[in-house]
Amino acid sequence: MKAARLHRYDASIPQDSLKVEEIDEPKIEGAFDVIVRIGAAGLCRTDIHVVEGQWAPIQDPGGSLLPYVLGHENSGWVEEVGSGVTHVSVGDTVICHPLMSCGLCRACRAGDDMMCENGEFPGISRDGGFADLLKTNARAVVKLDPILEPKDIAALADAGLTAYHAVRKSVPHLYAGTRAVVIGAGGLGHIGIQCLKALTPAEIIVTDPNDKALELAKEWGADQTVKVEEGYVDTVLEMTNGKGAEVVFDYVGERGAEDDAWKMTRNGGYHYVIGYGGTVEVPTIDIISTERNIIGNLVGTYNDLAELMILTAQGKVTLHTSTYPLDAVNDAIQDLNTGNLQGRGILVPDGAAS
Amino acid sequence: MKAARLHRYDASIPQDSLKVEEIDEPKIEGAFDVIVRIGAAGLCRTDIHVVEGQWAPIQDPGGSLLPYVLGHENSGWVEEVGSGVTHVSVGDTVICHPLMSCGLCRACRAGDDMMCENGEFPGISRDGGFADLLKTNARAVVKLDPILEPKDIAALADAGLTAYHAVRKSVPHLYAGTRAVVIGAGGLGHIGIQCLKALTPAEIIVTDPNDKALELAKEWGADQTVKVEEGYVDTVLEMTNGKGAEVVFDYVGERGAEDDAWKMTRNGGYHYVIGYGGTVEVPTIDIISTERNIIGNLVGTYNDLAELMILTAQGKVTLHTSTYPLDAVNDAIQDLNTGNLQGRGILVPDGAAS
Amino acid sequence: MKAARLHRYDASIPQDSLKVEEIDEPKIEGAFDVIVRIGAAGLCRTDIHVVEGQWAPIQDPGGSLLPYVLGHENSGWVEEVGSGVTHVSVGDTVICHPLMSCGLCRACRAGDDMMCENGEFPGISRDGGFADLLKTNARAVVKLDPILEPKDIAALADAGLTAYHAVRKSVPHLYAGTRAVVIGAGGLGHIGIQCLKALTPAEIIVTDPNDKALELAKEWGADQTVKVEEGYVDTVLEMTNGKGAEVVFDYVGERGAEDDAWKMTRNGGYHYVIGYGGTVEVPTIDIISTERNIIGNLVGTYNDLAELMILTAQGKVTLHTSTYPLDAVNDAIQDLNTGNLQGRGILVPDGAAS
Amino acid sequence: MKAARLHRYDASIPQDSLKVEEIDEPKIEGAFDVIVRIGAAGLCRTDIHVVEGQWAPIQDPGGSLLPYVLGHENSGWVEEVGSGVTHVSVGDTVICHPLMSCGLCRACRAGDDMMCENGEFPGISRDGGFADLLKTNARAVVKLDPILEPKDIAALADAGLTAYHAVRKSVPHLYAGTRAVVIGAGGLGHIGIQCLKALTPAEIIVTDPNDKALELAKEWGADQTVKVEEGYVDTVLEMTNGKGAEVVFDYVGERGAEDDAWKMTRNGGYHYVIGYGGTVEVPTIDIISTERNIIGNLVGTYNDLAELMILTAQGKVTLHTSTYPLDAVNDAIQDLNTGNLQGRGILVPDGAAS
Repeated sequence: MKAARLHRYDASIPQDSLKVEEIDEPKIEGAFDVIVRIGAAGLCRTDIHVVEGQWAPIQDPGGSLLPYVLGHENSGWVEEVGSGVTHVSVGDTVICHPLMSCGLCRACRAGDDMMCENGEFPGISRDGGFADLLKTNARAVVKLDPILEPKDIAALADAGLTAYHAVRKSVPHLYAGTRAVVIGAGGLGHIGIQCLKALTPAEIIVTDPNDKALELAKEWGADQTVKVEEGYVDTVLEMTNGKGAEVVFDYVGERGAEDDAWKMTRNGGYHYVIGYGGTVEVPTIDIISTERNIIGNLVGTYNDLAELMILTAQGKVTLHTSTYPLDAVNDAIQDLNTGNLQGRGILVPDGAAS
Repeated sequence: MKAARLHRYDASIPQDSLKVEEIDEPKIEGAFDVIVRIGAAGLCRTDIHVVEGQWAPIQDPGGSLLPYVLGHENSGWVEEVGSGVTHVSVGDTVICHPLMSCGLCRACRAGDDMMCENGEFPGISRDGGFADLLKTNARAVVKLDPILEPKDIAALADAGLTAYHAVRKSVPHLYAGTRAVVIGAGGLGHIGIQCLKALTPAEIIVTDPNDKALELAKEWGADQTVKVEEGYVDTVLEMTNGKGAEVVFDYVGERGAEDDAWKMTRNGGYHYVIGYGGTVEVPTIDIISTERNIIGNLVGTYNDLAELMILTAQGKVTLHTSTYPLDAVNDAIQDLNTGNLQGRGILVPDGAAS
Repeated sequence: MKAARLHRYDASIPQDSLKVEEIDEPKIEGAFDVIVRIGAAGLCRTDIHVVEGQWAPIQDPGGSLLPYVLGHENSGWVEEVGSGVTHVSVGDTVICHPLMSCGLCRACRAGDDMMCENGEFPGISRDGGFADLLKTNARAVVKLDPILEPKDIAALADAGLTAYHAVRKSVPHLYAGTRAVVIGAGGLGHIGIQCLKALTPAEIIVTDPNDKALELAKEWGADQTVKVEEGYVDTVLEMTNGKGAEVVFDYVGERGAEDDAWKMTRNGGYHYVIGYGGTVEVPTIDIISTERNIIGNLVGTYNDLAELMILTAQGKVTLHTSTYPLDAVNDAIQDLNTGNLQGRGILVPDGAAS
Repeated sequence: MKAARLHRYDASIPQDSLKVEEIDEPKIEGAFDVIVRIGAAGLCRTDIHVVEGQWAPIQDPGGSLLPYVLGHENSGWVEEVGSGVTHVSVGDTVICHPLMSCGLCRACRAGDDMMCENGEFPGISRDGGFADLLKTNARAVVKLDPILEPKDIAALADAGLTAYHAVRKSVPHLYAGTRAVVIGAGGLGHIGIQCLKALTPAEIIVTDPNDKALELAKEWGADQTVKVEEGYVDTVLEMTNGKGAEVVFDYVGERGAEDDAWKMTRNGGYHYVIGYGGTVEVPTIDIISTERNIIGNLVGTYNDLAELMILTAQGKVTLHTSTYPLDAVNDAIQDLNTGNLQGRGILVPDGAAS
């Protein structure tokens, strides 16, 4: 089958970052294996960080993973299942939770799928979905209404799930009269805004350096928008009676956003770290004298993904996408890296294009 | 009346940091005022930081507070009450919650006393309890069983309350089979250990550089102790299957504890910042790839203090103290600063000594 | 001043249930007293139950309350305040939380206003708002935007607050993909529907015997409506895959609704009792073999009321009302009792009519 | 193999209720099957209710289950595993969670094992553990320290788990200064008392008609005991300042306990239904005017069981048992039914006796 593989980490993100090549098809081996024919796979900023080698110490500490297939936002149709799989059948439309969890450790038993002690992450720690076929497991597939099209939803598998998970965790803090600040109206942020609108009565303030993104933010549900420029933190503070917001969602996590997020967080409030790249640096006296909290967010649970698909089916969440054939994966990577990719990039294998 | 006042901030913590002098007695003015005859007042590391001027930007930004009476851990007997006070009477033994809250703002109405929008903090933002009399308000006094002695409990008003508050917040995370790491078996930590024992079934691991403190920690309820020295973080990780603890209580917050606390926190776990002085500095990729959380802790609520007094009355929490007459306040400060004060320092006015 | 007083309990609800008469004006006595000039007072089914004597064993066990002024849903303008009141001023528009709480007991300190150990309930346990003036206290008044009109919002003080409180408690159970059943699209239910829409992504199923009410329910946000008639419980079960709803809000509580609510509650779900009159009767084997829960709901907290006023100001909750002059209070009572009152009945004193 | 099977429901609980006979051994068929060699199986009051036919409408609605092997509290050693089982090996000591859950439905994914949509219940809905061998699945076995003896812990699989689950749910309500009432110091209650002691600082009040049971209750951790006799509810109310307890655990659920539990529940408090047989009957006006709650409890989760085994290993929970050979199962049933069985009855197959 055709697949786009990474052969070396390279911080320069060369034009031939991935090599589109023929590789062996995956095979069912275990009772809970599931093979999915990929309908669409989302391209994520994390893919760029993987190419750069930023994730290598975490994902590939031994350095033996290469070459491997990227792609961790996958959707398609069930191609083949192991003997123990009963909840999906060949032909079902599915979206893939990014983690293949074991179902038997304490975390899995508590519903904290991402904390699974034995999880594998296709596209990160093993072959992913920039290919015709993906091998995952029974616990990773969410069955969908067949009217849903993989290309319209694939990017919800990780970006959408991450955006949703953070918003869902914040629900107890965002009652009527509270404010939420969303930093970054991009790939994750634009889904976060829609989720906030669907799940909470909070007033939503969105910040972004891009005017066009702010305009779109209003369409997605922002109550107020603030352009990221000199002094914008003070503008947000003024909008919140000088106090800041109960929850600040930092979907950027670098280039100063990680500092601004803390400054815009109200006493007793929550700074949600979602994007990454920078470093959070806060004096302990500031933390304790204001009882503020810094909250980590890692993708989301299987049930989170199922809930997000319900919001999507209800029309409450829609994705802004640009589609590329799988063969053009390197173009997509360059466009994403240079800021020329509108919405989420979606890769479609030849067989799935219609 | 006699009172110990600060006349200038001085980072050198001179031998005459406070001046013990005669000042006017406070008077009842509002309907909810309460005047307490001080039985004992605790000396806290925060008092040293106040003397040094470390808190000045927060507590005294205008610089007009001086001279004022320190002392924010107060207990004694009701001396006089305003016309609207009905729940305590003259002569009642009381402990004082450190904050005089308004009772009318959103935070007060939600039970988050420390987030009060109109609170005043005797000993920090106005005259405190290193004196014969203290003026506070109805919402700050907790009525006690008359058999309780102010000198035995005064330091629970702030240090104890802070230690308890953090532990109480952690209860949902500390079920059977989990581990809690307590950094620092000193003034706050030794109360935290006892509270953990009383409220949770977690295994308690205590770290401290002082052998004597670790011995005492075992008496207070530590299941395991680890001396703070080269490589101790790895020792704690080994004790926790290489994963770290579900909750790490950093009662120190400086001199490297703030970094070690993060390293000893398990994926999905909680790093509670309680002590202060240092700076927390964590790459966002570490926060998100492990979904760890950094939690601020600021003193505690009125109900927290009432609960702590119940544990104390039940004999589940006891304080380790050294008593000084109020006149010797500067000796006590020097002893605390040089590490020669065993347990919590307690100041007793002449009239309350027996 | 003019006031409508009850002089005797009478199960027949006579045409002259209340006597509109001249009585002395209330006076400021305590530091936290507040006197409100009534702009509008809501009429509630509880008023009928009070007239009937159904509440007498709870509200007036000694039998010494009569004659007294009814009216527990009050809104107007501050007329006069005690010396300790700082958060509202003469002339401010306010809505009155139904309970005058003490602010000093454990429940008040935890934000559970309705559990106050020293609360008084104007219109139930002392003179209420069917009058020109009402005496309440500082903790019971919520300051409003002056553009809000008392007659448009008075009924939110109790009916609205009760509807909101139950919905707010249910938020953790009503994530995307869940169903909520609302029994009764009347005075409380129609607010409950709007609150569910504002706070949760749940699918809302409304049941009522009245076709007109069901039509209106759709306008307020019901996703589906079911007429209460033979077999309607089965219809609801079919709509929920034979399983029932995660939360059933019983805003009726009598005439069979209390049984049907339980039957429509899914395993592991919640049957919220809000309306009253009937008796819940469930075999313990049914409770334990399905792990279902029966949840009591009593009015709501001060912060709940403040939040509801924000939703109202945002246009997310609107009341359906019929206005009567205070002099016509007995007509309003008869109309309510005979089912001829559309929406919530609102009584307006002469001075407030414009 | 030898097994004790039920051949007919009979409300008289005859001396030959079960027939000990030779039947075929179970075989591994699916990838996640696990066969356990039974070390010990607990006898439970539910077994008597099954013999009587009280559970037949729920467990065996079609009436085709008979004859089948009873026994739902099972512990032993892994005998054989399916191809997909990786977390236990042949020879491991295990305790069996009572439900064979699917791991794929929403409830399983959320950690609510008992709400599994595809669960099977050995000993209730299929062959159980009154036999030499039991067939269950990978998700039902908890691996234990090999020093633990099945006969000492088997009854924790259901009775212990049920007692623990209810206590664990109550932790947020039982802070310092609260009271818990435990109705019934028998098979479940005596574990409940120990769990309350281990998990909460609440004062524990135990009621039971049996003086000997109350004596033992004190040893297990009761702070106060009250004999169930005329007027005992008033005695409990006096012990709780006339208000009742924050949480009442009704481990009996019949013969009046279900009414008394409600009466001893404080305003805003929780009546936990755990035992069964009677009917809860409460006027809705009582529910809403006090905002009390009635909470169902059904066994517990897999993680609950793992936590309970940790408390057991720590010596915080111990079982009071009487052992019978499997051949004497009918004697055990008669002893339990006539009140002559001290502690929990434990059945041991010939091969496991040592």
